Amino acid sequence: MNKHLPAVLDRLDQNRDAGLERLFQLLRIDSVSTDPAYAPSCRKAAEWCAEALRDIGFDANVRDTTGHPMVVGHDRNVRTPGQPHVLFYGHYDVQPADPLELWTSAPFEPRISDEPGNGQVIVARGAQDNKGQLMTFFEAARAWKEIAGELPVAVSVMLEGEEECGSPSLPAFLTASGDELKADLVLVCDTGQWDKDTPAITTMLRGLAGTEAIVTGPSRDLHSGMYGGPAVNPIRALAKAIASIHDDDGGIAIAGFLDGIEPLPDEQRQQWAALSARAEGPLLSSVGLKTAAGEKGCSVIEQLWARPTVEFNGITGGYQGAGSKTVIPSKASVKITCRLVPGQDPERCLKLLQDHIRAHLPPDCTVDFIGGRGSAAVGFDTSSPAVRSAATALEAEWGQPAILMGCGGSIPIVSSFKDVLGMDSLLVGYGLDDDRIHSPNEKYNLTSFTKGARSWARILAAFAEAR
Amino acid sequence: MNKHLPAVLDRLDQNRDAGLERLFQLLRIDSVSTDPAYAPSCRKAAEWCAEALRDIGFDANVRDTTGHPMVVGHDRNVRTPGQPHVLFYGHYDVQPADPLELWTSAPFEPRISDEPGNGQVIVARGAQDNKGQLMTFFEAARAWKEIAGELPVAVSVMLEGEEECGSPSLPAFLTASGDELKADLVLVCDTGQWDKDTPAITTMLRGLAGTEAIVTGPSRDLHSGMYGGPAVNPIRALAKAIASIHDDDGGIAIAGFLDGIEPLPDEQRQQWAALSARAEGPLLSSVGLKTAAGEKGCSVIEQLWARPTVEFNGITGGYQGAGSKTVIPSKASVKITCRLVPGQDPERCLKLLQDHIRAHLPPDCTVDFIGGRGSAAVGFDTSSPAVRSAATALEAEWGQPAILMGCGGSIPIVSSFKDVLGMDSLLVGYGLDDDRIHSPNEKYNLTSFTKGARSWARILAAFAEAR
Repeated sequence: MNKHLPAVLDRLDQNRDAGLERLFQLLRIDSVSTDPAYAPSCRKAAEWCAEALRDIGFDANVRDTTGHPMVVGHDRNVRTPGQPHVLFYGHYDVQPADPLELWTSAPFEPRISDEPGNGQVIVARGAQDNKGQLMTFFEAARAWKEIAGELPVAVSVMLEGEEECGSPSLPAFLTASGDELKADLVLVCDTGQWDKDTPAITTMLRGLAGTEAIVTGPSRDLHSGMYGGPAVNPIRALAKAIASIHDDDGGIAIAGFLDGIEPLPDEQRQQWAALSARAEGPLLSSVGLKTAAGEKGCSVIEQLWARPTVEFNGITGGYQGAGSKTVIPSKASVKITCRLVPGQDPERCLKLLQDHIRAHLPPDCTVDFIGGRGSAAVGFDTSSPAVRSAATALEAEWGQPAILMGCGGSIPIVSSFKDVLGMDSLLVGYGLDDDRIHSPNEKYNLTSFTKGARSWARILAAFAEAR
Repeated sequence: MNKHLPAVLDRLDQNRDAGLERLFQLLRIDSVSTDPAYAPSCRKAAEWCAEALRDIGFDANVRDTTGHPMVVGHDRNVRTPGQPHVLFYGHYDVQPADPLELWTSAPFEPRISDEPGNGQVIVARGAQDNKGQLMTFFEAARAWKEIAGELPVAVSVMLEGEEECGSPSLPAFLTASGDELKADLVLVCDTGQWDKDTPAITTMLRGLAGTEAIVTGPSRDLHSGMYGGPAVNPIRALAKAIASIHDDDGGIAIAGFLDGIEPLPDEQRQQWAALSARAEGPLLSSVGLKTAAGEKGCSVIEQLWARPTVEFNGITGGYQGAGSKTVIPSKASVKITCRLVPGQDPERCLKLLQDHIRAHLPPDCTVDFIGGRGSAAVGFDTSSPAVRSAATALEAEWGQPAILMGCGGSIPIVSSFKDVLGMDSLLVGYGLDDDRIHSPNEKYNLTSFTKGARSWARILAAFAEAR
């Protein structure tokens, strides 16, 4: 164990109230990025973060973009050849607080509250997403500097202020600042734990590809008495095509769609099967369901994290009013998005999907596709030194092995770091499913904040050990 | 041949201009039934018709209803035991003339125009539907009375003024006036010919049954990243259920749905197959299609007139806006109407359809059905004396055998006469597909009017012969 670590952890415990006050200062800034009226608040939050980094000992400042500014800081004073260099990513912007009337206290006046099952919680917009999470890292860095005078590894920090509005300025900034930002690994603290007692590392994020299929049959809407029978019905044609996309076991029946997907390592598959046994009931029952609808033979967790999907997000065609109308419509359309997993190329998958639909239409039906953007899934090597070190450090802090999780959705920044700068990310966060992010009364467990900071202190030490 | 018939036909030819002027008088009355502002015009048209019947020699008057009035008239002076008694049905109301700017002349100022392919045509709202058609019968009756002093059979007339707005007053009127209106046969002149040279009798009308199926999966809309895979998608579930309704040969795969349908008589099947060979191309190509989508092994005409359908009139579910949204919706729904043929019970068919959908949904999906009204198909015995007599009379007038047609849609009045008063109908009309009924510049070929009147004169004589 690193000789300074016990003292660093003690310092974090001693600093708890001061650290909480620092977080409260940041939470009091209403840095809502989606509404231009809050642009001054966003800049204020950026300035606050840069000042906090300088106070810790970073060389940090605010960088203008075409949108809200970035914060970049470096702690290079210990950098020696061969030493790991990590780039911490976070975002200082928050979601709007609306609807205000559902908050039990003002969203930008943080407070500590007692909550059954969670103990003391920090309540404010951004308490978790992402101010509480990013401050766990700041506090860990601060304690290290205070105790050891230096960080165990070289650390840079990049914070953005547009994560909640699609990060429009980010790709150009990454491209322009690549030389400055390039590190061995990105640390992202924007994810969650398995549960409040069980830490997690997110090592797999599904990708996304989507399109809209518009099927045309007759050249105009027809009277179903005058044409019903001989005239093809595009709703029926579309339904037949849609229905052919999944087989009877819930699997995707598009030829070639699953090519390139590596089987899940046995260890992970078994871990997830065990998790599924606990998680399946609550996950499904919370949304009124009982039976997993994904591929037979895959656990619910595997269906969610490591298997692709083809989802129909919206369908429309024909008469949309009240009552009935005896019409055979000219057109019917469906919006489709696919969740992809590592090994699948978004463009290829979209083409296979489109070819499949085209091939399953009857004579006289044509199909046009609109849209077609995609992003690949991201999967990190779970046996890498970074993941191993972090897992060991998390287990030491929480007393439970870290779960290697997937994520059913996408985190675009992770793809951007990979695509633009070739950097892998380590996703460690302390959020919980009941944190109400993006909703009224957002909270962050006090233990998430304190043990989160201690976890980062341990992870940084573990990285140094592993070099 | 009836001894008076040649003179009656001659009288019709001599009366042509006077008859046309009588039709023009009726066409000048803007008896639009859907707009309350035209209620006085509707009454005026009813009074005109009653007066016309009295002028011919009928005992006729206007009867108030809760809506627009009925016209009822009787010519009983020749009624002797065993003599056939027919009830002629027509309607004096018309569709609105909008959009006015698309008319080349005022819709209620009838005129004669020359039209390539059709020769002289009568242009006005109602020229065909139904004033022109009903006046063919009035003129025939007038000529008979003028020449022979009596009609060949007993005739009653009932005209309504609400056909274009759903006939709300009709069922109660039929029930209340059943004893007065009951006859051996209803004559309806509200249908069309096969083409301008080929007369037709419509002997089969499809019925209708409809419902809306609302499928619910998750209890709320879900994020497709967070739930995609394990969560059932109601659009997919609905599509699978819809897709299972038809087999790969275009037939209806709902168990029991086709029970009770009598096979088409060989003679009619062959006649229709021959018609299909001529009609299929133009029918389909006029709406941008090439391939008949109905049951394999059935001609297009048979698909349209004598086979049931299950049509999807409207489908909706999930995100309906522009672009994409990664949502798994909670609900998806489809509006369905079935065209039914003789032998099918609407309530039973609806239940089978609903049971089929319910049985083809995956676990966790429930379905609610809204609506569910239906009306049975009507099929008349094509070997009955009335049909045989009319067919012979029509062939004598037109020089072509009359086609025994079906009709893909429904004519509710025919069902009402059958259901309320137990009366079969004989549907003979002289309309053509290009008559632009319900549209601007509605027309009725002058030959439809003149030869239509001659046809009724012959049919009345033929009924008398057949007794």
